[in-house]
Amino acid sequence: MFVKNAWYCAGWDKDVSLGLDALVERRIAGEALVLYRKPDGGVVAMEDRCCHRLAPLSLGRKEGDSIRCMYHGMKFGPDGKCTEIPGMSKIPEKACVRTYPVVEKDNWIWIWMGDPAKVDPDLICYAIGPSDPGWNLKVGHVRVDTNYRQELANLADLSHVSWVHGLTFGGTEDWSRIKPRHGLTARGIETEFCVRNVPAPRFAKHLFAEDARFDIQVHVRMSVPCNFILHFVVHERGTAIDGPSNGRVVLDTFSSQAITPRDAGSVDYYYSWGCSKATDIPGVTNLMHEANVVAFLEDKAMLEGQHRRMLEYPGATMVDIVHDAGPGKMLWVLDKLLKEESHANEMAAA
Amino acid sequence: MFVKNAWYCAGWDKDVSLGLDALVERRIAGEALVLYRKPDGGVVAMEDRCCHRLAPLSLGRKEGDSIRCMYHGMKFGPDGKCTEIPGMSKIPEKACVRTYPVVEKDNWIWIWMGDPAKVDPDLICYAIGPSDPGWNLKVGHVRVDTNYRQELANLADLSHVSWVHGLTFGGTEDWSRIKPRHGLTARGIETEFCVRNVPAPRFAKHLFAEDARFDIQVHVRMSVPCNFILHFVVHERGTAIDGPSNGRVVLDTFSSQAITPRDAGSVDYYYSWGCSKATDIPGVTNLMHEANVVAFLEDKAMLEGQHRRMLEYPGATMVDIVHDAGPGKMLWVLDKLLKEESHANEMAAA
Amino acid sequence: MFVKNAWYCAGWDKDVSLGLDALVERRIAGEALVLYRKPDGGVVAMEDRCCHRLAPLSLGRKEGDSIRCMYHGMKFGPDGKCTEIPGMSKIPEKACVRTYPVVEKDNWIWIWMGDPAKVDPDLICYAIGPSDPGWNLKVGHVRVDTNYRQELANLADLSHVSWVHGLTFGGTEDWSRIKPRHGLTARGIETEFCVRNVPAPRFAKHLFAEDARFDIQVHVRMSVPCNFILHFVVHERGTAIDGPSNGRVVLDTFSSQAITPRDAGSVDYYYSWGCSKATDIPGVTNLMHEANVVAFLEDKAMLEGQHRRMLEYPGATMVDIVHDAGPGKMLWVLDKLLKEESHANEMAAA
Repeated sequence: MFVKNAWYCAGWDKDVSLGLDALVERRIAGEALVLYRKPDGGVVAMEDRCCHRLAPLSLGRKEGDSIRCMYHGMKFGPDGKCTEIPGMSKIPEKACVRTYPVVEKDNWIWIWMGDPAKVDPDLICYAIGPSDPGWNLKVGHVRVDTNYRQELANLADLSHVSWVHGLTFGGTEDWSRIKPRHGLTARGIETEFCVRNVPAPRFAKHLFAEDARFDIQVHVRMSVPCNFILHFVVHERGTAIDGPSNGRVVLDTFSSQAITPRDAGSVDYYYSWGCSKATDIPGVTNLMHEANVVAFLEDKAMLEGQHRRMLEYPGATMVDIVHDAGPGKMLWVLDKLLKEESHANEMAAA
Repeated sequence: MFVKNAWYCAGWDKDVSLGLDALVERRIAGEALVLYRKPDGGVVAMEDRCCHRLAPLSLGRKEGDSIRCMYHGMKFGPDGKCTEIPGMSKIPEKACVRTYPVVEKDNWIWIWMGDPAKVDPDLICYAIGPSDPGWNLKVGHVRVDTNYRQELANLADLSHVSWVHGLTFGGTEDWSRIKPRHGLTARGIETEFCVRNVPAPRFAKHLFAEDARFDIQVHVRMSVPCNFILHFVVHERGTAIDGPSNGRVVLDTFSSQAITPRDAGSVDYYYSWGCSKATDIPGVTNLMHEANVVAFLEDKAMLEGQHRRMLEYPGATMVDIVHDAGPGKMLWVLDKLLKEESHANEMAAA
Repeated sequence: MFVKNAWYCAGWDKDVSLGLDALVERRIAGEALVLYRKPDGGVVAMEDRCCHRLAPLSLGRKEGDSIRCMYHGMKFGPDGKCTEIPGMSKIPEKACVRTYPVVEKDNWIWIWMGDPAKVDPDLICYAIGPSDPGWNLKVGHVRVDTNYRQELANLADLSHVSWVHGLTFGGTEDWSRIKPRHGLTARGIETEFCVRNVPAPRFAKHLFAEDARFDIQVHVRMSVPCNFILHFVVHERGTAIDGPSNGRVVLDTFSSQAITPRDAGSVDYYYSWGCSKATDIPGVTNLMHEANVVAFLEDKAMLEGQHRRMLEYPGATMVDIVHDAGPGKMLWVLDKLLKEESHANEMAAA
């Protein structure tokens, strides 16, 4: 169900503060985690259950680098080892909780949910964070009650912009006729296409002349578990009829989106969007963010409706269409990694 | 669990308007349906899931006679055939959604949930609709969280009027001593009895002298899946001690009730009640409707409590009483039709 | 899962009034019960489902000593025997509902959930009720969504006072170093210890000098299913370093707590606490009660968090600590009684 040897986004760095009570509960790939920030600024991620009787450590107390379970007072260091059991002088060897490798990058907190021996920081997905000096980016979060495979399918096929996002990003049916190139990468796909000679997206249409036409150049990098990194450049209508647009750049935008499966039926969706400072116009990043918030609710309604039907009709036959190429490739990569991991686990167990 | 070759009520005709956004979601006999009205006024009933990836069509858009899925833009005609897949010139043969035969009659929308080859409009239950010129009828709707078998049992035994409806239709224990005749029909039962020499129903008692006494002549036609058609005539107390009342008719009333199972644990209950114009008194239909609304909440509380106990005690033994004759006959008919249908399906599969 | 041959607390005597509509629904050890009080003041406890079609009797009507099901009017005497079926002259032998032995004691209503032939009033747990003339006691109720085994474990180890109740009963880590003696009794354990030389509990600290120190003498009697009877005496700091405190008694308090499992995932918690009139100070019982209400919410948050984790991680290994001695003994007693009862049932069936 989940690729364990992968980095999962646990939210924005600001979500885990230095505050005394800042114990953050997360559910990632079916597991309950607690996150907290040490006085030196480092983030610790642990199983959110005491090894004694499973009380949530997120109901506990930060003490320096450590966390204390507030049921019976057991204290755990940032490595998960128990360092104090009130009333006992000797601490049993096995008194410890699992910790998870954590990396902060691009203002996101990434957690390695798999074998610590296989940690590989190079597998953290490329992104641009809101503190990047070259960009004006605004961030958001939404929870969607669907399986993350449906999120992958949603994001790997942007033809849905014409329909789901007709009142925000869309406003033209041209998106539904895109013919993207989807290239395979080690952990996902890379997609490129240009939507040519279209009006401004619906949410920004009032800023331009009625007959203004644009090329929208899209470049997407997707990777497991469910990361979607989008370079979205608005050009004046160019003359090229193939390959990248050759129109003047109007707006150079970037969106980083990490969708973390909580369990089989819900995801936490962390996203940013905004403009390069080189092409920024006062107010435009705010406008884009407002449209983004609405657009993700448009997706949420559709994905949750779809998810309900998938649960009701588990064996339903489905008809494929041309736009399934992207989702098909991305899910193929996911399934390949799932199979490899399951095979490696069987080998290790044998 | 459900007789599929039967007409199921999907609500009042007014529930499905000509409005652009009027896509109505219904759950009937375990299936998710979307209903909409074409410009010519005809109603279309379809599976509420796109054949591509199961997105609900009820989140779609009406386009003339057609409906467009607003996830990836697939368009379906009123016959369920896909007529457009944006980005594709050829439409796969199997790109279609199931549609259901629909008939509007007596201001109700009826849907045939079974084999279209077996559609038989004669099986639509007899009723009198609110637009009938001879009657003043008011309509309502309530959802009840129970299995429709318990609704059948409730309606096939009106002795419960004395107890459940003591503050509305009842007000005398005479209902609990009725001895109805239940005749079998092809798809249900027909029941007749007279409650003699009783005060006015509780909700109307204040309109008459304290010692006024009436005969209430009841005629019920029930049919699968769960229709209850009631002719309820209030007479001045007559002299007949057997057969129909021979007292003067005070109020000639009619109630049409269609209870549609949504799934194994809930029903949609559509009902009307009112007076023949021949015996109408100003205000009486409103008064009856107000009592009816309360009475159906009285039933709802009892039926939902009973349903919870049925789920908690699945194997509980039950004691039969004399009033179970009606429910017994009606459920016997239902079970016979279920068995016949299941047998016919097996034959067809063999 | 539940010891059936035991007395279960169904709440305070005041919960079941003489009022006409006073039909009280309870869930005890997985069973649905209805309770009512007869005109002579006696309490009747019955299955909360009519033997006809399982309608809840708690939706019924009190009639003298009897209860009438308000679905079809069947009437049951306080012994559970059906005495009237409207419309029938003869009542079937098996028309009856199960009743349960009831005893009122110490302002609590106790119900015997097992074999009536084995009823033993001596097994009702010792308690002091709020009407006892020697004490000022205030009572409360809280529902906790956990399994009652976790409540047993919580109450059999008061080291958690230091952590869970740091803002109410605690305020010092000395509770986490207690070394209680736990003695076995026929149906539970008896626990005694003294917490010496500690500041006043947090909720009462402002009433004393900053450097005031006390000994807290604790005596607990626990019994199945989940009763916790606490004698809690605050002494001025004494000189004894072993055995009971020899300081002057400041406050002599008593708490009776009965925790009734509703089902595998929730309990009803009935509690009292207060002062002996001999040591009472105006206002102190109210202050204690206010602290108690908060403290039980502190427990509720922890226990419900723990319960969620237990459901999520059913096979999780757990590390034992020194303070598990009390919980271990109490659960051992429970499991022994469960096993004995299950064995006796098998013998009886063979």
